[in-house]
Amino acid sequence: MADALSTTLAALADPTRRAILARLATGQASVNELAEPFDMTLAAVSKHIKVLENAGLISRGKQAQWRPCKLEAGPMRDVAALLDTYRAFWEQNLDQLDAYLTKIQTPENDSKN
Amino acid sequence: MADALSTTLAALADPTRRAILARLATGQASVNELAEPFDMTLAAVSKHIKVLENAGLISRGKQAQWRPCKLEAGPMRDVAALLDTYRAFWEQNLDQLDAYLTKIQTPENDSKN
Repeated sequence: MADALSTTLAALADPTRRAILARLATGQASVNELAEPFDMTLAAVSKHIKVLENAGLISRGKQAQWRPCKLEAGPMRDVAALLDTYRAFWEQNLDQLDAYLTKIQTPENDSKN
Repeated sequence: MADALSTTLAALADPTRRAILARLATGQASVNELAEPFDMTLAAVSKHIKVLENAGLISRGKQAQWRPCKLEAGPMRDVAALLDTYRAFWEQNLDQLDAYLTKIQTPENDSKN
């Protein structure tokens, strides 16, 4: 069985599943409501929802008639914590790019001066 | 072909690949150096490195003799941006948990009062 962090990341590694989470960020929704915008079978959407549910990224209501899906963002916290350990690296890269762009756009730094 | 964000997330969804990135955060390393701590074949480690390289999370040096792997954190920025859109949700959950724990641990709020 995969570790929790790998399960969360794998669940997020699909555009349909990310779209489902984005929809649920606006409020709870039934499987039918979630399926509506997608050009795929209800079975295919249900499978994506199951992956998200297994990863703890959504929960299902308890009512027998209407079991709405609800966003559970908790597992994303560990992913954010992982990425934070690398933040200095991509910010450094942006700083280097910024310094480079400033350099080539500043006439005073031109080789003819 | 998967979108860039899905490719990045899928590449991160493996503990060995995350360990390789963590090692590279301390400096460049050869494939042999990266493989050393793992109880797996060099071919298996090379495959993981290839996945990370295809996701743009590492680059390889150009020297023929020694082609060190280098961390490229740039693609993680988009994942962090995605997670940031959900930050309010998990912080809200933590706030609710915090409020609940404060409530049950405060004698003044006890039902006998």
